Amino acid sequence: MKGNSDKKKDDDQAAVERIRKSRITHVDVLDLARLVIEGNRAALSRAITLIESQHPEDQKNSALLMRSVLPHSGKSFRVGITGVPGAGKSTFIEAFGTYLTGQNRKVAVLTVDPSSESGKGSILGDKTRMELLSANPDAYIRPSPGSGNLGGVARKTRETIFLCEAAGFDTILIETIGVGQSETAVHSMSDFFILITIAGAGDELQGIKRGIMEFADLVLVNKADGENIQRAKLARQEIARALHFFREQQSGWTAVAEVCSALESTGITEAWNVMLTFQERSLGSGWFTQNRNNQTKWWLNETLKDELSQAFFLNPKIQKMLPGLEEQLLKLEISNTEAAKKLIGIFRISE
Amino acid sequence: MKGNSDKKKDDDQAAVERIRKSRITHVDVLDLARLVIEGNRAALSRAITLIESQHPEDQKNSALLMRSVLPHSGKSFRVGITGVPGAGKSTFIEAFGTYLTGQNRKVAVLTVDPSSESGKGSILGDKTRMELLSANPDAYIRPSPGSGNLGGVARKTRETIFLCEAAGFDTILIETIGVGQSETAVHSMSDFFILITIAGAGDELQGIKRGIMEFADLVLVNKADGENIQRAKLARQEIARALHFFREQQSGWTAVAEVCSALESTGITEAWNVMLTFQERSLGSGWFTQNRNNQTKWWLNETLKDELSQAFFLNPKIQKMLPGLEEQLLKLEISNTEAAKKLIGIFRISE
Repeated sequence: MKGNSDKKKDDDQAAVERIRKSRITHVDVLDLARLVIEGNRAALSRAITLIESQHPEDQKNSALLMRSVLPHSGKSFRVGITGVPGAGKSTFIEAFGTYLTGQNRKVAVLTVDPSSESGKGSILGDKTRMELLSANPDAYIRPSPGSGNLGGVARKTRETIFLCEAAGFDTILIETIGVGQSETAVHSMSDFFILITIAGAGDELQGIKRGIMEFADLVLVNKADGENIQRAKLARQEIARALHFFREQQSGWTAVAEVCSALESTGITEAWNVMLTFQERSLGSGWFTQNRNNQTKWWLNETLKDELSQAFFLNPKIQKMLPGLEEQLLKLEISNTEAAKKLIGIFRISE
Repeated sequence: MKGNSDKKKDDDQAAVERIRKSRITHVDVLDLARLVIEGNRAALSRAITLIESQHPEDQKNSALLMRSVLPHSGKSFRVGITGVPGAGKSTFIEAFGTYLTGQNRKVAVLTVDPSSESGKGSILGDKTRMELLSANPDAYIRPSPGSGNLGGVARKTRETIFLCEAAGFDTILIETIGVGQSETAVHSMSDFFILITIAGAGDELQGIKRGIMEFADLVLVNKADGENIQRAKLARQEIARALHFFREQQSGWTAVAEVCSALESTGITEAWNVMLTFQERSLGSGWFTQNRNNQTKWWLNETLKDELSQAFFLNPKIQKMLPGLEEQLLKLEISNTEAAKKLIGIFRISE
C-alpha cells in the first residue's frame, strides 16, 4: 500500500505531466502555482514559458499565476551584472554562481537580451557559455525571453525573478547583453549592480560606459591573472579614483572597485563580501525596501505605457481609421500631432 | 510718400516685433507662418521656439503653424550625421556646411541631444563649436530642443526640419549627440546617413557602432591629414571590405567608405559627390519618396505612443486612482499587468 507521501509524489508527477501540455487551463494554473512554490523545477520552467506567451488565454492565466505566486516572492538578493565587450562576463557569472552554490545559496541566472532571436537557441547558447553552472543542481539558468521590444522582454524577466524567488532561489543574477541598451532596465530590477571591466578597455570605451559607471555599486576589473595582475591593479586604482568624482548615490553607498580573475576564481569572495556589506547596510538604512518600492512604481509606469499602446494599436476602430489618416499625412494635409490627437479621441470612446 | 514695398517692410518689421512677445496669439500664427515661408530668419527662430513650447495654448498654435507651413516643406536634402567619439564631427560639419554654402546651398544644422540641459546653453556651445558656420549668412544653426525624452526631442527636431525647409533651406544637416541613443531617431528623419570615424578607433568601438554601420550610406574616415593619411586610407579599405558583408540596404544603395580631412577641407567635394549620386539614383528609383513615406508612418506611430501616454498620465481620474493601486502593488496584492489593465479601462471611459 502506498503512503501519503508516495501518493503526493504520484499526484505531483501527474500534475507536472498535465501542465507540460502546450496550453494550460485555468485549473492547471493553481496546480502550477503550488508546484512552483514547492520548488518543482519543471513547474518553474513551465510557469516562465506561460508568462512569456503572447496568447490572450495564456496572458489571463499568467495574471492568475502571478497573483498566486507574488506573496511568496521578494525574498532574494537581486544582482544585476553588465560588462564592457570582452571583459569576460559569462566566465565571471560561471565562477560567481558556482561560488554562491558553495555558500549554500540557490542561484538563478536570468538574461535580458532584446536582440535574442529565439528562446530555444539561447538555451543551448547559455548552456555552452556556462557549462559548470548549468549542470549544478543548485543553479537555474534561464535565457532571455524571445525577441521583442526591450520593455516587453525586461518586464517578463522581472516576472521571472518573482517566479524564481517563489521557487526558493535566494540569489538572482540578472545579466545584460549588448551595450548601452538593457542596463537601465536591469538596474531597475536589481538590488545591487556590478560592472565588469578589464585593464586597458580604452578611454573611449570607458566613456561609453560612463553612464553605467554612475549607477554601478561595484566595478570589477576582471582578468587579474598571470602577467596581467599588475595592470589590472593599476586599472582598479584609476577607476577607484574616478568613482570619487561621481555624485553620491541615492542609496548612500559609495561604489567600490575591486580586481578579480573569473578564470582562476580569485577575488570572488571579496566581491561577495562587498555585496553582503551593501545588503546589510541598505537593509539597516531602509534603502533596500525603498529602492524596491521605487522600482515597483517605475515598472508600473513602464507597464502602463506598453499596455496602453497595445490596447490602442489592436483596437479595431483605430486599425480602420489609421490608413486614411496616413494618406492625409503623406499628402501633407495634416500634421502628425493633429492626426494623433484625432485617433486618440476615437480610441477613448470606442469599445 | 512710401512705396508698397517699403510699406510691406514696415508691416513685416511690426509683425516680427509682435511675434517676439513671449506668448503668441492665434492671429499672430498666420503672420508667423507667412514670414517663415518668406524666409524671415527671426520668424523662423520664433516659430521653432513655439513648436518647442510645452504650454497647451502654444501647442494649439503650433498645430495651426505646422498645418500652414507643411505644404511648403519637404523640398530639401536631409543628411543625418553621427560619429564615434573623438572623430571630429563638429569640425566636419563646419567644413562641410561652409563648402555647401559655397555651392549656393542654404544650410540648416540641427542637433538631436536628449541629454541637453538647456537650449540656451547649447546655443552658445554650438556657436563656439562651429564658429565659421554660425557667422555664415547662408547657414542657420539651431541647437537641440531642451532636455526631455528622446522621442519628444526628436519629434520637435523633425518639425524644425519642416520649418527650415519652408524658410528656404535646401540642405538640412541633422547631427546626433551621444553614442547609441539618437541614431535611430535621426536616421528616421534623414534621406542620407553619414558615419564619421577615424583610423584606429578600435575594434571594440567599431563593434559598438556596428548597428549604425549597418544603416550608414557613407562612412567617412576623418583626420586623413599630416602623418595620418596612410593610416586613414588603410582604415578606409578595411571598412570598405567590411561594408560588403552587410546585407544590401532597402534603398538598393551600397554604402561607400571615403577619407577626408575636415581640418584641411579635403575629401569634402568627393563626399558631397557621393551624396549627389545617391540622391539622383534614389529619386530615379522611387526610393527617395518611398523612404520619406515610410518615415512619415514611423513618426506617426511614435507620435501616437507619446500623445497617448501624455493623455493618460495627465488624466485626472488616473491621477486620482494611481496612488491606491501603487499601494496594492507594494503590498504584493496585485500584479503590474493587472493594475495596468484596470487603469486603462478607467482611462478609456473617463472624460
